[in-house]
Amino acid sequence: MSAPPVWLRDNCPCPHCRDPRNGQKLFQITELPAALAVDSVRDATTADGAPAREVVWAPDGHRSVYAETWLGAHLPGASAAPGDGRTEDDKELWAAADLEGRLPEADWSAYTTGPAVKAAALQSVLRLGFVLLRGVPVHDRQVLDVARTFGYVRETNYGELFEVRVEADPNNLAFTGARITPHTDNPYRDPVPTLQLLHCLTNAAQGGDSGLVDGFHAAALLRHEDPEAYDVLTRVPVPFAFADDRSELRAHRPLIGTDPAGRIREIRFNNRSIGTLHQPADVLDAFYAAYRRFGELLLRSELQLEFRLTPGDCLVFDNTRLLHARTAFAESGDRHLQGAYADIDGLASTLAVLRREETVK
Amino acid sequence: MSAPPVWLRDNCPCPHCRDPRNGQKLFQITELPAALAVDSVRDATTADGAPAREVVWAPDGHRSVYAETWLGAHLPGASAAPGDGRTEDDKELWAAADLEGRLPEADWSAYTTGPAVKAAALQSVLRLGFVLLRGVPVHDRQVLDVARTFGYVRETNYGELFEVRVEADPNNLAFTGARITPHTDNPYRDPVPTLQLLHCLTNAAQGGDSGLVDGFHAAALLRHEDPEAYDVLTRVPVPFAFADDRSELRAHRPLIGTDPAGRIREIRFNNRSIGTLHQPADVLDAFYAAYRRFGELLLRSELQLEFRLTPGDCLVFDNTRLLHARTAFAESGDRHLQGAYADIDGLASTLAVLRREETVK
Repeated sequence: MSAPPVWLRDNCPCPHCRDPRNGQKLFQITELPAALAVDSVRDATTADGAPAREVVWAPDGHRSVYAETWLGAHLPGASAAPGDGRTEDDKELWAAADLEGRLPEADWSAYTTGPAVKAAALQSVLRLGFVLLRGVPVHDRQVLDVARTFGYVRETNYGELFEVRVEADPNNLAFTGARITPHTDNPYRDPVPTLQLLHCLTNAAQGGDSGLVDGFHAAALLRHEDPEAYDVLTRVPVPFAFADDRSELRAHRPLIGTDPAGRIREIRFNNRSIGTLHQPADVLDAFYAAYRRFGELLLRSELQLEFRLTPGDCLVFDNTRLLHARTAFAESGDRHLQGAYADIDGLASTLAVLRREETVK
Repeated sequence: MSAPPVWLRDNCPCPHCRDPRNGQKLFQITELPAALAVDSVRDATTADGAPAREVVWAPDGHRSVYAETWLGAHLPGASAAPGDGRTEDDKELWAAADLEGRLPEADWSAYTTGPAVKAAALQSVLRLGFVLLRGVPVHDRQVLDVARTFGYVRETNYGELFEVRVEADPNNLAFTGARITPHTDNPYRDPVPTLQLLHCLTNAAQGGDSGLVDGFHAAALLRHEDPEAYDVLTRVPVPFAFADDRSELRAHRPLIGTDPAGRIREIRFNNRSIGTLHQPADVLDAFYAAYRRFGELLLRSELQLEFRLTPGDCLVFDNTRLLHARTAFAESGDRHLQGAYADIDGLASTLAVLRREETVK
């Protein structure tokens, strides 16, 4: 077995090394012998009778039994490194035409009664970045119940839920009839809410249509078309800020967040809350050229998926990936959405547990 | 003014460019003229009568009035780039001896009635990573009320709050009497909860003392002592995982998270929930050598701040920076903490609003 000994030993599945009640590791990395080595290896069987290899360790004589299936799946070189589902590698990037006529959607009653329907809907949020639930009861605060079907509401200074409708003294443009171009929400928060829900209660106004843009797709396009601009946007921290009577929030993060391997992991884009960059003049020049380029790209019509929310629709989307937008609407018209934030790790957990059940493929 | 024109224009404070009701920017970067240039500059005054410079822009003729004080503070080169408070640059790193005899603490009644006391306590969480509130009422669920004094509870699969006491069938080692070495909580979650609260209701058991380690300080030490090991830990994503009957969570993140400028921003360290790394053998060798080295460093006695929680104490700490620990205790003894998670952006907002009031320096 051509595996580093310390890696293999760190994965020992015996009950002294892992708590059989919960799978948690019971030793510290510092408790392993510094001069750890494989003393001998022989064929064996697991407690379940499956083919395995038993390793006896020097210098401490510990014995580890590894199932052949585990070794086949995990030995270095056996398989590509799986991700945690959050980077571009685990997503299906899309332009508007890719989803024309096949919006990911689910009927609320089927979603709440059929585990397979629910699993497919949650999978859409992970893979495509969103799902549109149809026929959700048009009740005040229903959006919170929708969130609780897959996770936990993230309360913020806007409350457990927020009302998207025209307000007399708005603390946010969202609460006017103005056009809102594609953006992510709350970039001035860290951690940013990773999921957003928008539940339509009324939409009788002239205008007020909805739009979505796949920010991962847009960033990948920028990387292809203008690698230098892409690079600048992954490196320059942007000061986002929001303040009202009761709050004062700020976070300095790049517009395109990448993981250490350089994969796209998080988009923040919101012209309304971008603050004053403090950088040398040459960095400002490079940043603004790249920012404009990315902004133009995000407005390309082929990237804009457009649809109209009708009462009973609830949009659930990944706020670290998708940008959302709406057209202007007449402030005299009646348009009322209720929104809430939640987190995608809880949604992914709910999906993983659903999949353990055999009714779901 | 030696500032890039597009940067200066993007910061125009006029009411057409920024909503005077909420300060939000009203234009897209793509709406500015591509060939933007300064047409003329002259001395002026703001609407408040303060000295200012007025810029007339070509080609669109827009006029912007910038207060001299704003220009002095923001022009490129005028000042160092401020951070958002979350990286090592904005922290006061500590070893145990630095805080001996001067634990950051506050009395609950002073905290709840005195804005200056509260501001100092919240500032301790931002600067040092924690505060110890004393004399908090010993009531069931009180920990949630503590969280609500500065922010919002982050509900998770463990509930709104979690009970830290010996359980018959624990889904987590925390709920046994075992020693727990320094770790951060929930590294298998992304976003990870950025704050943790631990409220002591009973601590009559033999053992069960508390410990804290400044993970930013430890990471900075590693960078100084073994730059290669530090570099490996900032680059290799570590698969963290947790699963029980109702949950299945995973996140792949490095042990030391840095911002694009390379500053330490987030520590994840938890031997119990680290999964199987899939990497080439040479990366595994380098990772495990670095992981052991960081693990040894985190256990150095001079880094361990030790104290004992007594009933009525509530520890509030930054879970992206501090590692917490406890000594083993007799499972026959009575020890009961209630814990909750929250987020540090809400705490920072509460502090910023407190500081607007003149009673607080």
